[in-house]
Amino acid sequence: MSKETIDEVIAVSEGRMLGDGLQWADIKEIVARCSGLDEWYGVFAGIGERYEKLAEKSLQAGHKISAGELFWRASMHYHYAQFYAFEQPALREDGQKKKVALYRRGAPLLNPPAERVEIPFEGFTIPSYLRLPSGVKKPPCVVMLGGLESTKEESFLFENMCLARGLATFAFDGPGQGEMYFQSKIRPDFERFTSAVVDYLEKRSEIDASRLGVIGRSLGGHYAAKSVAHDNRFKSCVCWGALYELQTCWEDMQLPTRDGFRYCAGQTTLEAAKRYLEMIDLNGWPEKIRCALYIQHGAKDALIPVAQAHRLAQESRNASRLVLDTPAEGNHCCHNLYHVSRYPMADFLAETLNG
Amino acid sequence: MSKETIDEVIAVSEGRMLGDGLQWADIKEIVARCSGLDEWYGVFAGIGERYEKLAEKSLQAGHKISAGELFWRASMHYHYAQFYAFEQPALREDGQKKKVALYRRGAPLLNPPAERVEIPFEGFTIPSYLRLPSGVKKPPCVVMLGGLESTKEESFLFENMCLARGLATFAFDGPGQGEMYFQSKIRPDFERFTSAVVDYLEKRSEIDASRLGVIGRSLGGHYAAKSVAHDNRFKSCVCWGALYELQTCWEDMQLPTRDGFRYCAGQTTLEAAKRYLEMIDLNGWPEKIRCALYIQHGAKDALIPVAQAHRLAQESRNASRLVLDTPAEGNHCCHNLYHVSRYPMADFLAETLNG
Repeated sequence: MSKETIDEVIAVSEGRMLGDGLQWADIKEIVARCSGLDEWYGVFAGIGERYEKLAEKSLQAGHKISAGELFWRASMHYHYAQFYAFEQPALREDGQKKKVALYRRGAPLLNPPAERVEIPFEGFTIPSYLRLPSGVKKPPCVVMLGGLESTKEESFLFENMCLARGLATFAFDGPGQGEMYFQSKIRPDFERFTSAVVDYLEKRSEIDASRLGVIGRSLGGHYAAKSVAHDNRFKSCVCWGALYELQTCWEDMQLPTRDGFRYCAGQTTLEAAKRYLEMIDLNGWPEKIRCALYIQHGAKDALIPVAQAHRLAQESRNASRLVLDTPAEGNHCCHNLYHVSRYPMADFLAETLNG
Repeated sequence: MSKETIDEVIAVSEGRMLGDGLQWADIKEIVARCSGLDEWYGVFAGIGERYEKLAEKSLQAGHKISAGELFWRASMHYHYAQFYAFEQPALREDGQKKKVALYRRGAPLLNPPAERVEIPFEGFTIPSYLRLPSGVKKPPCVVMLGGLESTKEESFLFENMCLARGLATFAFDGPGQGEMYFQSKIRPDFERFTSAVVDYLEKRSEIDASRLGVIGRSLGGHYAAKSVAHDNRFKSCVCWGALYELQTCWEDMQLPTRDGFRYCAGQTTLEAAKRYLEMIDLNGWPEKIRCALYIQHGAKDALIPVAQAHRLAQESRNASRLVLDTPAEGNHCCHNLYHVSRYPMADFLAETLNG
């Protein structure tokens, strides 16, 4: 693929990359060094490796805070390395596993640390991380859901926003996501995995399980809505992008996105994937939402039309509080507005959970 | 000035801007909207105003953490607004004052808060901010020095790195800098102002004044070296760029930089400024440095030749510990390496002060 394509890919993704913690200096280097998408994995992974070496060196010198942050940065580079390796499933798997291993190595060094938790559930093991805000007794806790190809390792910066506001965070991979992908592809009952997480959180004495929130991004926004409709133990929910129904936007999606859905759904053809994913439909669920609900959806989202967010808001008539925020210039998940769009979501969670 | 010039200015400054907290999305907007340097102030200030409004709105809604961060961002935009307003002294003054006011408004809302402190000293009032790491009893404290046109409001992110490592921070404006500029232009005895700060810190029971460090950037690196040579109460010093002597690099400096020196020195002509600034010379001082010393200086610094850093290191033979770090690709203050170059400085301070 041509240089132009790399520039295009970066133009679409840079908001998300920067918002999730990639450095502009690294993105610039990647653009300069990649002459095509076939070089993408190698260049990204090379920078990841560089960060990993810096992290190891910092750790050896006893500089734990730096080491933790650098392991996390290394991990993020392997995430984006595998992100566009559509045609190379082996690289995708390598990138995912390396991301997981690096984040796991950094987790205890983060500030505050991320405690690795593995929840047994119906023969599965749900991999997750718990972080506690320092200096807060029995804090509320926000459960973090990834989307189609975002995982528990990517919410670090948003977790920090929650932690600064006195909220604990719990990020996990559900069916089809990150580590769980190797145990289960997308299933119709993601919300039952969220409830298994709530069961677990109720046993953790450090947090106040009577004040739980959930935030989900992109496909995770869909899962978040379904999770709080299914489980009334949540007090607050943020849909960071509202995917109401997949079928109506399927044909308009770029091929790579549809192929990503096919991959995470464990299907061999796009047709089979489309049929299998009829389950991605909130019809009948929003009426069951009783907690506080905040929906943020870019009016210019080219992937999921903003009409889906309006529909979700309209049908969530039983929510205890409802905010629909549709920034006029926002693209998918308002990633292009990353520098301002995350504050209101974190503040909504803090306001509804801190009471 | 042409669009090309704006691109050039950004190319030179983006590392510093990003490292100090500007968002790439905002820089991109500025590049798109500025067709020349005469529009620079207005565009930057416009974004600053936008952040200020967001900050006020957040504060009214009780979202203090967001408000604090947004006031700080607003403040940074006014800093860079005035930064290139060379020909418009009234705008420079407006920008400086607006920056000060916005940061001051955000200071108590920051996490952890920045306490405004005003130290009386020989008829002057030294404006400063103290921040304490949460959960640490009697922490060491790092004194932060700005450079020619960097001020106490700009060290926020580096302060956060120190705070995460258990170090308190104390940032102040000395002669010729920020708020102090309106009281005193550059003087030959900056180090006496630093010592006045140490006298004050010894009275603050929250910190351990037997473990003080100092870090200074660019011209501040010069002041830092002089300050620890003058005052043996410091245990650690970081020169973030080592300006040993101004005279030898004066003629090679770009006109805007020389004019910046002229302005801060309160001189009317460049010739007078050059003569007046003969005081910027470390000759005789480095031998007196007894504390731990870390010097970081980009090998490709086009403003101050790396030879000045080597000279400082060579003459600092009595330092209790000496690290000279000259990254091969680093420009002035290694701003282009902002994403990796700040870790070792913060870690050196933590290691030498936490013991």
